[in-house]
Amino acid sequence: MSLLVVGSVALDSVATPFGETADALGGSAVFFSVAGSILHPVQVVGVVGSDFPLTALYALEQRGIDLSGVEQAKGESFRWKARYSYDLASRETLETRLGVFADFRPKLPAGFRDAAYVFLGNIDPELQLGVLDQVKAPKLVACDTMNYWIQSKRDLLLELLRHIDILMVNDSEARELSGDWNIYRAAQWILQRGPKMTVLKQGEHGALLVDRTTTFKVPAYPLQDVFDPTGAGDAFAGGFMAHLARNGDLSPPNLRRAMVYGAAMGSFAVEAFGIQGFDKVTPADVRARVQAFKQLVHFDVDGPAGP
Amino acid sequence: MSLLVVGSVALDSVATPFGETADALGGSAVFFSVAGSILHPVQVVGVVGSDFPLTALYALEQRGIDLSGVEQAKGESFRWKARYSYDLASRETLETRLGVFADFRPKLPAGFRDAAYVFLGNIDPELQLGVLDQVKAPKLVACDTMNYWIQSKRDLLLELLRHIDILMVNDSEARELSGDWNIYRAAQWILQRGPKMTVLKQGEHGALLVDRTTTFKVPAYPLQDVFDPTGAGDAFAGGFMAHLARNGDLSPPNLRRAMVYGAAMGSFAVEAFGIQGFDKVTPADVRARVQAFKQLVHFDVDGPAGP
Repeated sequence: MSLLVVGSVALDSVATPFGETADALGGSAVFFSVAGSILHPVQVVGVVGSDFPLTALYALEQRGIDLSGVEQAKGESFRWKARYSYDLASRETLETRLGVFADFRPKLPAGFRDAAYVFLGNIDPELQLGVLDQVKAPKLVACDTMNYWIQSKRDLLLELLRHIDILMVNDSEARELSGDWNIYRAAQWILQRGPKMTVLKQGEHGALLVDRTTTFKVPAYPLQDVFDPTGAGDAFAGGFMAHLARNGDLSPPNLRRAMVYGAAMGSFAVEAFGIQGFDKVTPADVRARVQAFKQLVHFDVDGPAGP
Repeated sequence: MSLLVVGSVALDSVATPFGETADALGGSAVFFSVAGSILHPVQVVGVVGSDFPLTALYALEQRGIDLSGVEQAKGESFRWKARYSYDLASRETLETRLGVFADFRPKLPAGFRDAAYVFLGNIDPELQLGVLDQVKAPKLVACDTMNYWIQSKRDLLLELLRHIDILMVNDSEARELSGDWNIYRAAQWILQRGPKMTVLKQGEHGALLVDRTTTFKVPAYPLQDVFDPTGAGDAFAGGFMAHLARNGDLSPPNLRRAMVYGAAMGSFAVEAFGIQGFDKVTPADVRARVQAFKQLVHFDVDGPAGP
């Protein structure tokens, strides 16, 4: 089933204690599609400026990513510059230059309007709603947002919640949106506003899938070396949605499995700078990591001799 | 198999956004033994002052806890006073009055020296070593500590590590002890100093069991209402050790199960003030919560139709 993402295609300059990049390929739609395309073809809607390196776009196409919804506009590409703390636990945004992204009005090519699985990356909720208007009959719509939109476009965001199936945000964003510091209550607050489910991303602590009656937790993969947390959340979303799109199964067991595929992609993302963590990652590698997650959390309630 | 704990028996005054207590029964040995005794008898070594309410001790004995190793000394009991932040994520210690605890030299009754399972609660590592000297042939020794001892008695703590099987600490303490912010590297650092395993407690994010080759993660139980985090770590230890002591099985699958019993006890601890969370909790309640943990993390790598 077709899988569509709308989001940023950016040039990232990131400094961590282990090195730095300058104008490296990044952005939510890029991390989503690079991770997702390992499992399933991905259609991207976005914009780049006239200065965007075509070799970078070519590299995405080589991964089987459909860029026919990425327009090239006159002007500068979206650039983001950040520096992480020594323990990677926090980061400071040094510069955000929207460039052509400021006037971005997503337009879906005719072939994208049949998309069954849709991920609305973290952009203005007005644009997210505009994308939804162009999709004919999506089977599942998931959506990210951020504190900036929660504060500046709260009404539009609440309107958007009535039209999506899954809100996928950081736990701090869920807290801010709901005004409740308890994340399980915050999740229920969100579910009362429309979505059937919410995915709360918790960084180094993994992620939660919450619906009205059940909670599923997947931890983060234990890594002794983390190089660059950038894009982990979007890679998570890419793995989650691509797993669902490839088998079209929205049953609770398969949604749990999708969470683990998401967490696996998040772990590949942070093992190297930018999208380099996905170089040479095969579907078999992803599956092996999913099995490693099983080993990480598996226990039996009863032993051979009772509890 | 007999289970022994040495630690503090205290009078806690705790304020949270939901209420406060004054001189309530607390301390590491108390939370450990109250949780543990639901599953298995617990022997306690500790000290109280001449002002300690005997009704509180009687209540412990009613739970089947053996207090014959708790001496009553002349002077004031150990008192601890703290206030939690609005979201319970941090706390400020307002007062610590050691009282008779300052001169505490644990002495094991003859009947306690055969203990098979030993938990050394968070006290001076010199005293922890002194307790170990009095135990004849323990099958499993686990040990807690805190930043204060890591800073002030590092050499004794490193000596202690050579004589224990499991170091059970908060992730921040593991970071401080090892000097490494990555908790998985910190765990390996600890394992190189003696213990076969380490349990890293992560508060609202659960706990990790790490040995040289594998990692097991148990999340915290999702609770919409948390009233008082005090004692959750000691209750965790009580559940963990009591589960092992009651079936005497140190196999990896049973150690994982013990982690979940620990996490279940931690969740009961935080649902009410002090030890009140354990009032009326039966072994069947604990088992039901262990099964709820299974539902929280369970997934199958393969679905009916493949991945």
